[in-house]
Amino acid sequence: MAHLRITIWNEFVHEQNNKLVQSIYPDGIHAAIAASLRALDDRLEVRTATLEEPDHGLSEKLLRDTDVLFWWGHCAHDKVADAIVDRIQSRVLQGMGLVVLHSGHFSKIFKRLMGTSCALKWREAGERERLWVCNPGHPIVRGVETCIDLENTEMYGEPFGIPEPEEQVFLSWFEGGEVFRSGCCWRRGNGKIFYFRPGHETYPIYHNPQIQRVLLNAAHWARPEGHWDDVTKAANVPADKAREPIQAKGGSVH
Amino acid sequence: MAHLRITIWNEFVHEQNNKLVQSIYPDGIHAAIAASLRALDDRLEVRTATLEEPDHGLSEKLLRDTDVLFWWGHCAHDKVADAIVDRIQSRVLQGMGLVVLHSGHFSKIFKRLMGTSCALKWREAGERERLWVCNPGHPIVRGVETCIDLENTEMYGEPFGIPEPEEQVFLSWFEGGEVFRSGCCWRRGNGKIFYFRPGHETYPIYHNPQIQRVLLNAAHWARPEGHWDDVTKAANVPADKAREPIQAKGGSVH
Amino acid sequence: MAHLRITIWNEFVHEQNNKLVQSIYPDGIHAAIAASLRALDDRLEVRTATLEEPDHGLSEKLLRDTDVLFWWGHCAHDKVADAIVDRIQSRVLQGMGLVVLHSGHFSKIFKRLMGTSCALKWREAGERERLWVCNPGHPIVRGVETCIDLENTEMYGEPFGIPEPEEQVFLSWFEGGEVFRSGCCWRRGNGKIFYFRPGHETYPIYHNPQIQRVLLNAAHWARPEGHWDDVTKAANVPADKAREPIQAKGGSVH
Amino acid sequence: MAHLRITIWNEFVHEQNNKLVQSIYPDGIHAAIAASLRALDDRLEVRTATLEEPDHGLSEKLLRDTDVLFWWGHCAHDKVADAIVDRIQSRVLQGMGLVVLHSGHFSKIFKRLMGTSCALKWREAGERERLWVCNPGHPIVRGVETCIDLENTEMYGEPFGIPEPEEQVFLSWFEGGEVFRSGCCWRRGNGKIFYFRPGHETYPIYHNPQIQRVLLNAAHWARPEGHWDDVTKAANVPADKAREPIQAKGGSVH
Repeated sequence: MAHLRITIWNEFVHEQNNKLVQSIYPDGIHAAIAASLRALDDRLEVRTATLEEPDHGLSEKLLRDTDVLFWWGHCAHDKVADAIVDRIQSRVLQGMGLVVLHSGHFSKIFKRLMGTSCALKWREAGERERLWVCNPGHPIVRGVETCIDLENTEMYGEPFGIPEPEEQVFLSWFEGGEVFRSGCCWRRGNGKIFYFRPGHETYPIYHNPQIQRVLLNAAHWARPEGHWDDVTKAANVPADKAREPIQAKGGSVH
Repeated sequence: MAHLRITIWNEFVHEQNNKLVQSIYPDGIHAAIAASLRALDDRLEVRTATLEEPDHGLSEKLLRDTDVLFWWGHCAHDKVADAIVDRIQSRVLQGMGLVVLHSGHFSKIFKRLMGTSCALKWREAGERERLWVCNPGHPIVRGVETCIDLENTEMYGEPFGIPEPEEQVFLSWFEGGEVFRSGCCWRRGNGKIFYFRPGHETYPIYHNPQIQRVLLNAAHWARPEGHWDDVTKAANVPADKAREPIQAKGGSVH
Repeated sequence: MAHLRITIWNEFVHEQNNKLVQSIYPDGIHAAIAASLRALDDRLEVRTATLEEPDHGLSEKLLRDTDVLFWWGHCAHDKVADAIVDRIQSRVLQGMGLVVLHSGHFSKIFKRLMGTSCALKWREAGERERLWVCNPGHPIVRGVETCIDLENTEMYGEPFGIPEPEEQVFLSWFEGGEVFRSGCCWRRGNGKIFYFRPGHETYPIYHNPQIQRVLLNAAHWARPEGHWDDVTKAANVPADKAREPIQAKGGSVH
Repeated sequence: MAHLRITIWNEFVHEQNNKLVQSIYPDGIHAAIAASLRALDDRLEVRTATLEEPDHGLSEKLLRDTDVLFWWGHCAHDKVADAIVDRIQSRVLQGMGLVVLHSGHFSKIFKRLMGTSCALKWREAGERERLWVCNPGHPIVRGVETCIDLENTEMYGEPFGIPEPEEQVFLSWFEGGEVFRSGCCWRRGNGKIFYFRPGHETYPIYHNPQIQRVLLNAAHWARPEGHWDDVTKAANVPADKAREPIQAKGGSVH
């Protein structure tokens, strides 16, 4: 497949202030994911960006040069500037792919694109999770067998406050008795969005080879298939430019 | 059918500063729609609210007592306070119906719930529009024959920047050669949303009996079928409250 | 709510040739469901029909007088005549609701309406199942708390070969480690379709009050909201009946 | 892009018994489409098949070696054997793409996959049609401007008896006053399905460069993104193979 430009965004907070998280992701979750993607596919161009950089590292230029954006956030959602959220949303509508990870369900950009609460139930008890594949031929599960077992995870449970997924790729089973829609696809404008549940930062989820495979697959799936720049423009078509000849009549407020 | 509590919201600007609009809707578009709904169905409880009232007339209590909210806005979308938009969104997710009219496609609440640009093409030339019914058995078209002809309308044309409609009720044909998805349904949380295109304020669209019939049908269609108050709550489920017995293990960030 | 006419169809085979099933449903699953619905709501008109009756008990007249059809089948799917399946499909497209139960996932009528394999994984080990509510305000879960626990069930597991559900109402957790989309909604034409997984005939599932409540709710949810008789008619519109004046030109194959 | 194997199926009847059609498509519609695709993209492997061949030219092997199947039929839908329809459906569920053309809306395979009537209104008056793009960034409209004008077409009008499209790519405007959902996408199993309206055989629609471009784009869009052979298998998972240890309990009908 062709060259793909990926940007991995991380609020990068817990890795700097929590010893356990630091021990698992010493350079940050973004660096771990970036390394795993590069190792799996050498045609990728992978960059990272974090909250504390100017514009959170997400300049107009960088987003324009990004095919797929990965999003990790957990405790600092509110620190993301609305103007940057606007910018990301525009790029998604134009065609940029977006992969939202785990606690990113409550990020501003995900809630913005979904229009719903994005709320869920949760429990941090290190229990077992099993992600079942709903459609074994889906490009996001290429190389994954029927399911992925994770020995220790944070539980997320239904109800999950999302618009109905357009494609259900994974459903999770939890040791404590819950279920969850763990891999969900939507399109908004020309952009493809994938929400992928696994990833709690106190467990080495992103070191799991099957999870890494899914992230790579998701990047390829979410790549722009087309592009439309003027997505937010409400263009006037004057009467004398109408495709069928018409005469303007009646009153106007414009 | 049972009692239904409707609130019709209007920014109520053009009717106060444009003579032509005033001549068509002397008491405002909200008053005209309210009167037509009351005339068609005497079991309705219809209230109105406008931009200039405190909280734009949309107090917590009024929204809690509203089954279906109609939304008209055109030139003052930006004057609607974000806190009120939050309040309306919460009520929609809980179960309140929302009927968005014409230029309301660019309202904050519609863009919030859709997550997309909601942009479209337009032309104000008083041309003929014909709304075709895509599904003659849909409750929103009860009493409407195969189509509705409007002699003078503002044109709205594709592309319309919305998530794919869950139900396509009307498609419009325009004299000048365009088409448009004129009647679209979505569910978000427990709330049902109907976007209905007709209504430009320089033409007497809301005096048309077939349009009035559709608005009444839409109100009944959008009525809450259920209700869920805690829609935005992300509840923790402690390990000792899990449905299956589990032992908490591993680290924590909480 | 208004009067509702329900027909419960059962192939009625296992109850006649399997002692265990007979002991649980001595008069058949159809009779048990019919009795429970009548007990819960005295405005219902509930009839039953079975495979061995003429036309499988589903005459044109009976289907025309049915608002919602429940479907139970397991070992005799192939014995249902195609002409009767055609008849049911037409009625669903016109507006009749359809509630498909458990092993009915492989019935001709369900496969016909879905267009997919409707295959799944299964295990008959009497394990525990927990059905989680994905949307607590949905009319189908009225009166159900967050989940339904069933002590003994046959397992159905993903992948489930269905078109993406338009509304996901329940997801199931199984003791043996699987998950399943247990309550799924679709519309086809004017008909609403609900697939509900629980019900294996060697366990007293349909004697469970919460299951009975869901079946009642499903019947009300699936009731026709409108009706369109000519659903399969491809009508010619002659040139001189076009809404806009046109002159016929060019060649013809008709 | 990679190699793509396309099969174009045609009932090939009107081109043999109608002089006008013969003059436009002397070697058949299938040959004209095949030639245009080959001319546009030399990495395609394009074959054709017709009704009168053994198995209608659609052997197990040929379908297995087909990435995307185009379907043209009009007057001979009923002559297509059900066993061949079964075979095509299985391949679509496994991942083969399907592009259904014009009067193919009433083909057995399209009705099978949709589950609905697929009925519509029509008029053969050689009127003007304009196909508007609903999403300018969609891969199917690459290279197409905002719309496609066709000077002479058969009209198809709403209501169109289909499940709601998952992506609306084109909407048509007709000179005589109707509208139609002219380009619609669905996924069934792993297969992508595109319905494309233009193509009446008494007009040279498939000689139009923009239509040819859309057909090429549709082929690339519908290419398999994954593959799942066992799509119709309902696999038993014995209790001792369950992912979580369980003991079988209770009765059985198997």
